[in-house]
Amino acid sequence: MLTVKGRKRLMAADAVVYDRLAVTALPADLPSAVELHPVGKRAKHHPLAQEEINALLVRLARECKRVVRLKGGDPFVFGRGGEEGLALVEAGVPFEVIPAVTAGVAVPAYAGIPVTHRNVSVRLTLVTAHESIKSDGPQVRWDLLAQDPHATLVGYMGVTSLPEVTRKLLAAGMPDDTPAALIQRGTSPVQRRVVSTIAKLHADGQAAGIKPPAVFVIGPTVAFAERLDWFVSRPLFGQRLVLPAPAGRLGEALDLAGAEVVELPLPVGEAGRTVLHSQPVTGCLLRDAEEVEALEEERDGAGFSAETIAWCLDEQAAARARDLGWLGVQVLPREVTAANLVEELQRRLPAS
Amino acid sequence: MLTVKGRKRLMAADAVVYDRLAVTALPADLPSAVELHPVGKRAKHHPLAQEEINALLVRLARECKRVVRLKGGDPFVFGRGGEEGLALVEAGVPFEVIPAVTAGVAVPAYAGIPVTHRNVSVRLTLVTAHESIKSDGPQVRWDLLAQDPHATLVGYMGVTSLPEVTRKLLAAGMPDDTPAALIQRGTSPVQRRVVSTIAKLHADGQAAGIKPPAVFVIGPTVAFAERLDWFVSRPLFGQRLVLPAPAGRLGEALDLAGAEVVELPLPVGEAGRTVLHSQPVTGCLLRDAEEVEALEEERDGAGFSAETIAWCLDEQAAARARDLGWLGVQVLPREVTAANLVEELQRRLPAS
Repeated sequence: MLTVKGRKRLMAADAVVYDRLAVTALPADLPSAVELHPVGKRAKHHPLAQEEINALLVRLARECKRVVRLKGGDPFVFGRGGEEGLALVEAGVPFEVIPAVTAGVAVPAYAGIPVTHRNVSVRLTLVTAHESIKSDGPQVRWDLLAQDPHATLVGYMGVTSLPEVTRKLLAAGMPDDTPAALIQRGTSPVQRRVVSTIAKLHADGQAAGIKPPAVFVIGPTVAFAERLDWFVSRPLFGQRLVLPAPAGRLGEALDLAGAEVVELPLPVGEAGRTVLHSQPVTGCLLRDAEEVEALEEERDGAGFSAETIAWCLDEQAAARARDLGWLGVQVLPREVTAANLVEELQRRLPAS
Repeated sequence: MLTVKGRKRLMAADAVVYDRLAVTALPADLPSAVELHPVGKRAKHHPLAQEEINALLVRLARECKRVVRLKGGDPFVFGRGGEEGLALVEAGVPFEVIPAVTAGVAVPAYAGIPVTHRNVSVRLTLVTAHESIKSDGPQVRWDLLAQDPHATLVGYMGVTSLPEVTRKLLAAGMPDDTPAALIQRGTSPVQRRVVSTIAKLHADGQAAGIKPPAVFVIGPTVAFAERLDWFVSRPLFGQRLVLPAPAGRLGEALDLAGAEVVELPLPVGEAGRTVLHSQPVTGCLLRDAEEVEALEEERDGAGFSAETIAWCLDEQAAARARDLGWLGVQVLPREVTAANLVEELQRRLPAS
């Protein structure tokens, strides 16, 4: 969901300070000269306190570095961008804000849920669900949110506190049968979705084994989810495929067919490696033996597993992969093109 | 605010169906082979009804064209993307949804307003303000929205119906002194902002001459607007500068200094022309006489005026511009670089 402007700033940065949740927005082709500073914010795990992050931003700026602070979503939507901005103002460091697509908009879209719809839902409200269980500071007024049938309510970090949230909404008069959905790792190749009602969402989510990170959506437009379910129904949904850069038309064909395509410059640099191993790789599309060798030392990283398939466009590449001990080696016909690549992959993919 | 994925799809499209409000997201370097279909949605002016837009999308898809439907913001946030999606499902046309940055998030950010802030605002609600005056269909529950002091309310199309909205909010108990802002043409070089309170916002907006399109923001984080006012305080804010592509490091320097940079391929194609004339051009940075000539026939378009300055990097370019009758011709020193360009422009800009 990176914006064109965000990418431009990243590629020209001296230093990137990024949340771990933002790894998927990190360009795999970030120049190797760019310093990378991961600063955490995994659920229940804050390796650097906010004050330390603020101080790091100021310190890097004072070293005359051009710094990009990369967030997992929009900096001002539950992203603490305001706090960081105020720290920069105080330190006299000029900055710009680059708005981005927030999960509360993107995740429902990938789950087939329009967050507004004429005459159905005329209001969109975004909250963090853990507000329902925190003990200090202002609380979300769940009682007010329960009373509007023509509204959509999206909750970030929605799993742990879901029983409490639904209890409060039902207690305040929200009808039992209000459509509701819980979406795990929305927009990713491992997206999972449970469509239910507000009364049953927690139980149905548990039965389906939905785990954090997840977003809930409550409101009448959830009823469109089955009809508008465009994302998981794409032929290569679930595939996360690595292609040595430039991926060209083959990469575009895979992307259009619903695969997540990681276009990876070789040899693998720090940013590329970080992106590569941030989520499981289901396959690599390899054009020759050199590409196999360039990826060989990545095979013990977190992204790779015994299930990762080496899709080889060349017999020699396949032979080299087998020699090196890759388990899943598939040879695609020499004459494979952007027009038939998806079909060739589908034919060879293990039925799931 | 175009996303990397959005741009990729646009550049590879056969046809682009775009709202007039989305012109700023149209790439000026769109290949000339791409068909352009403007379909309106200017305020109070709907040249094509929604059903006709749906039919156009289906017709183009059935011609086996790869179609991009470009919106002014996110397709599902007051963008009627759900309606268009359902029409495509009905017609059996496969599609994907590309989430984008919605104005309700981007406009406050450019006005220095974090829409959420820890312990200050824990909820963000987006509405269209004209819901307050429509006579059919479900209404926004302004009464509920009035009661939560730790929430941000953002209203799209916020000018015409603002008196009615503020009346309803105040009647439902929202405190008079709740911080509120009205932002005209947010994120653009002609952005204007009025910071006030809910009780005075309409009067202050009128006094300042704020006109549509505008967005209002109501809630406690509006109080940060003065301190976080990063956008209009940038040295070249207000400038919309055309640079023949590739704009290179000079373009980047102008962009970082707060100018809107239109990187325009020459000769000017249909997409470039559409983008160029969609808003006033304050200046063109011209490297040689050929570039002056290539832009000459654009000078009678809507983007150009007697105030448009030809910033020439070359005496011959300047001479040619004067010959052709350009009014504001400025010659920059031959040795101008990305490091001192902004300063050189500032020194020569008429005081405003």
